[in-house]
Amino acid sequence: MNSIVILGAGNVAFHLTRALLENTLNVRQIFNRTLSKAQEIGEASRISYTDKISEIEKADLYIIACADTAIEEFSHYIPYDDVLVVHTSGSSPMSVLKGDYRKGVLYPLQTFSKGRTMRYDNIPFFIETEHEKDAQDLVELANRISNEVHLLPFEKRLQVQMCGVWANNFVNHMYAIAGGICERNGLPFDVLQPLIHETAEKMLEMEPKQAQTGPARRGDDIIINRHLDVLQNDSRLLQIYQILTDSIKREYDND
Amino acid sequence: MNSIVILGAGNVAFHLTRALLENTLNVRQIFNRTLSKAQEIGEASRISYTDKISEIEKADLYIIACADTAIEEFSHYIPYDDVLVVHTSGSSPMSVLKGDYRKGVLYPLQTFSKGRTMRYDNIPFFIETEHEKDAQDLVELANRISNEVHLLPFEKRLQVQMCGVWANNFVNHMYAIAGGICERNGLPFDVLQPLIHETAEKMLEMEPKQAQTGPARRGDDIIINRHLDVLQNDSRLLQIYQILTDSIKREYDND
Repeated sequence: MNSIVILGAGNVAFHLTRALLENTLNVRQIFNRTLSKAQEIGEASRISYTDKISEIEKADLYIIACADTAIEEFSHYIPYDDVLVVHTSGSSPMSVLKGDYRKGVLYPLQTFSKGRTMRYDNIPFFIETEHEKDAQDLVELANRISNEVHLLPFEKRLQVQMCGVWANNFVNHMYAIAGGICERNGLPFDVLQPLIHETAEKMLEMEPKQAQTGPARRGDDIIINRHLDVLQNDSRLLQIYQILTDSIKREYDND
Repeated sequence: MNSIVILGAGNVAFHLTRALLENTLNVRQIFNRTLSKAQEIGEASRISYTDKISEIEKADLYIIACADTAIEEFSHYIPYDDVLVVHTSGSSPMSVLKGDYRKGVLYPLQTFSKGRTMRYDNIPFFIETEHEKDAQDLVELANRISNEVHLLPFEKRLQVQMCGVWANNFVNHMYAIAGGICERNGLPFDVLQPLIHETAEKMLEMEPKQAQTGPARRGDDIIINRHLDVLQNDSRLLQIYQILTDSIKREYDND
């Protein structure tokens, strides 16, 4: 992969460009339909950028890093056949790429925010390609960035992406609910920081099933009922509390 | 508080003893009904230990750090009136302490595991006492350990403890569900580590409501339906996925 063009200028495009450049891979150009966004990444990374389809440069690898709904459209912009084109989505099949080029997927399992500095060397990359040789090349490329590179077909990639919903989106929602309860009691969200961080840190040493604690784990119905009392005027939280408590109880039923 | 006795020898007792000693507070003795457990902490911290009620020393402060169900029993063991006795539970009222001594509560909001080294200086402590002067003394003591000390009555302490269920117990359950999905797809739990850590790290810079991402946040029903398909044979996970997705959608309805 002597040359790479990135299509898209969102959070994934931003961090992928940075990760590739940091590992001396040759990203030549950023294309995006909104020029200002391409410019932002282009100038930050000192590479050329464009919003004109006709100006998209010839390269060995095109990485389409955009919203799922835009992948197909972006995939039409690449007018070359003897190139590899990949998207970076966990939930789209390789077949959304429309073109006569060779196709593949390079999916990073991480949550990306533009403003944040983050490690790239442990991000899991999941790869799928039409052709064996392209898989080898993509694995080699991803290994320049990270130590966690896996070949994975679409059905399993979708499941991995769904893991992200549980471990990131739903976890974030739990933080938001806890933060709301703090707020209603006149306490700043920050009182939860040490607990949030210790809960995540523990995962480096323990499997989550071993690390589980709390009233549901112990089957402590006295405390559970006190919490349900507290929540009785909030049917949404009450329902979530009950369902998650039941789920934990069921998980440890045979202990 | 010139002298402290700890009653109990679980995770909270272990870390509280260590935190107090690290800040040169005078923990004189550990009492526990199972001698081997008191011995473990006593020897690690070079303080005396006993399993005999008659050997409990006279001290200024007694900290009962045991399971909620045992607080009342432990509270009978202290034969002095001119002392302060506190428990460390978020979900028990001060009144579970039975005795003619002065009463209080010193509740740390954190998840404690014996084997782990952890910071104490940011753990929030929530304090309640019968007498104003004891509140001052407990705040002073807790401030030796941590920068986050709050006076809080029982009703609010119960809510704070419930926040811990959301931000720790339920979050851990989300990790466990995600880990189970990884396992069923032949992937190690460790592929989730960077995502878990980034999700927690982000909370240092963003409020959870701003940090929320994912298909539910975007209202992306195509991806949501793909995930529901994947889960269709697991009614427990299907139900949780749907309820949390609905809850996130409702939260951002007015955006």
